[in-house]
Amino acid sequence: MFENKEKTEISKLGEFGLIDHLTKKFEIKNEHTTLGIGDDAAIINQNNMHQIISTDLYIENVHFDIMYVPLMHLGYKCITASISDICAMNADASQVLVSIAISSKYPLEALEEIYDGIKAACDKYGVDLVGGDTSSSVSGLMISVTAMGYAEEKNIVKRSGAKEGDLVCVSGDLGGAYMGLQVLEREKQVFIDQKDMQPDLEGKDYIVGRQLRPEARIDIVEMFEELKIVPTSLIDISDGLASEIFHICKHSNVGMKIYEDKLPIDQNTYDTAIEFNMPPTTAAMNGGEDYELLFTLPQSDYDKIKNSLDVTIIGYCTAAHEGKELISKSGNVVPLEAQGWENYKPEED
Amino acid sequence: MFENKEKTEISKLGEFGLIDHLTKKFEIKNEHTTLGIGDDAAIINQNNMHQIISTDLYIENVHFDIMYVPLMHLGYKCITASISDICAMNADASQVLVSIAISSKYPLEALEEIYDGIKAACDKYGVDLVGGDTSSSVSGLMISVTAMGYAEEKNIVKRSGAKEGDLVCVSGDLGGAYMGLQVLEREKQVFIDQKDMQPDLEGKDYIVGRQLRPEARIDIVEMFEELKIVPTSLIDISDGLASEIFHICKHSNVGMKIYEDKLPIDQNTYDTAIEFNMPPTTAAMNGGEDYELLFTLPQSDYDKIKNSLDVTIIGYCTAAHEGKELISKSGNVVPLEAQGWENYKPEED
Repeated sequence: MFENKEKTEISKLGEFGLIDHLTKKFEIKNEHTTLGIGDDAAIINQNNMHQIISTDLYIENVHFDIMYVPLMHLGYKCITASISDICAMNADASQVLVSIAISSKYPLEALEEIYDGIKAACDKYGVDLVGGDTSSSVSGLMISVTAMGYAEEKNIVKRSGAKEGDLVCVSGDLGGAYMGLQVLEREKQVFIDQKDMQPDLEGKDYIVGRQLRPEARIDIVEMFEELKIVPTSLIDISDGLASEIFHICKHSNVGMKIYEDKLPIDQNTYDTAIEFNMPPTTAAMNGGEDYELLFTLPQSDYDKIKNSLDVTIIGYCTAAHEGKELISKSGNVVPLEAQGWENYKPEED
Repeated sequence: MFENKEKTEISKLGEFGLIDHLTKKFEIKNEHTTLGIGDDAAIINQNNMHQIISTDLYIENVHFDIMYVPLMHLGYKCITASISDICAMNADASQVLVSIAISSKYPLEALEEIYDGIKAACDKYGVDLVGGDTSSSVSGLMISVTAMGYAEEKNIVKRSGAKEGDLVCVSGDLGGAYMGLQVLEREKQVFIDQKDMQPDLEGKDYIVGRQLRPEARIDIVEMFEELKIVPTSLIDISDGLASEIFHICKHSNVGMKIYEDKLPIDQNTYDTAIEFNMPPTTAAMNGGEDYELLFTLPQSDYDKIKNSLDVTIIGYCTAAHEGKELISKSGNVVPLEAQGWENYKPEED
């Protein structure tokens, strides 16, 4: 096929450009469809409660490696990642649908382990599994999760509402899931080279846990409600802080100043980064899969948030023309590039 | 993995047993979740309007063969099949989410063709594309579609309401998509054997069209509304009539008598079945992917439906203990087995 036709490599567009490109001709036709493609999730209005819906794919050897991911954790993590998209709209997750394609090399017990993980996550987050599909696949394992939630219209937070002067905040700590992945990849290589070796994960519990069993921050969404905070913009950190900063800045038409010394990095993440000869800041800025939340608040909300132990203010929003900048520990200003991590050369630390 | 553990082949359970097995431990926790797994779609109640939601996977070389399925038709058909699940609850389809995993062997233009087909179907059925995900895959093409629709609670039809004495009806005609597939498979084999041959699809337009570009019967759902009919049970025919009869009989706890001479079979389907030395009744009973609707009506609705040219009454519901039977053209009674088509040996026709 396509022998005589124009060919463009898909990789040229990147994921976000690709979706924009493919869906630019689609128009919204139904009055209940409030928001289509382009944010963390779509919005379907139902009187005053709005429904939030999002779908994601998890593909073997693209998103996960069965060599070191226990299948129960895989099931759990797929739900976490999908619920995280609902949190990223400041909504309460309520239902999921899960479809799995699996090759015949897997026994039934493998599927059972995946579903045990899905169930543990559904129980943890209080969501119902309401549907799905199973199919054989020619090779490998593929999981598709659609997650749904609800929010009152006035509480829904998109990527697009950040204003100049707003505080930039993150939940939890950053870079842990990425450093956990590095440890797991290293131990996999050791295992391939020497089959009788047991993986050495001693002292890496925290970061390996961050990689294998991340949590969606529904507690932060609940905290917003308790503190009567509605962030001006909100996104979950699935692809790395730098990438998410770019999304919010683009959708909100603002710039940001981020302070390197404010980035929340766990000691375990920090030490492991040093062990891998990687600047901890790089892990925090560019490591994905932490599923923490990045959000902006008006400065008037400072008093409400200042005592939240699990939220860190890392910078503030500027005018769009000021760009996206990292202020290093020594005070140097480093512009963040579109793929910040590729170009960012951190100083000695 | 699993070297030392009990292993059960997934194929032993079959698709429906598998889903039941994997999800039996899940409990419904949210008050808005009205119906979880087990019907054509889940139900989420929203005041008096209920939301219907369903998700399906389409996997290369499991559900489709790129050798003879044009990609635009593939995109169209995935939407059709998903919308058909919404029709099967007597609901109006309104939104879809589409995720696609695709290997790097495909150029961007391939994805564009798929999305052209998706758009054509969205336009045809009046549904909005509201989300999705794209990912690379290690091999092949995989499409996951989640479809949503709405219905008033009183109009929702499940598989479970058929009563003894009800009329058994189907829309359109049966077996065409299956015979179209046989023709395409034959021409593929000819092409593999002799590369310079062009496929010979002359006179097969109708059945090849049934296979490549099926339609969801939203017009039948609209007809129900116009005629003020609410079927007692309803399912779409995606896996073959016999299989769907078993689903309705199981969920409604009834039996059925089906009359062979009432089965609606197009002349093109009939002639091609004969050409392939296959009884046309086998194609009609067991050929999948027609996406017609199978439904039951109380006899009191007979006058409303009798003039509908596109609906055929093919039998009636009996008590469960009477089983599921096909009355042959010569009056013989043939019990339908769980996989009716494997055991059914039709008479000479």
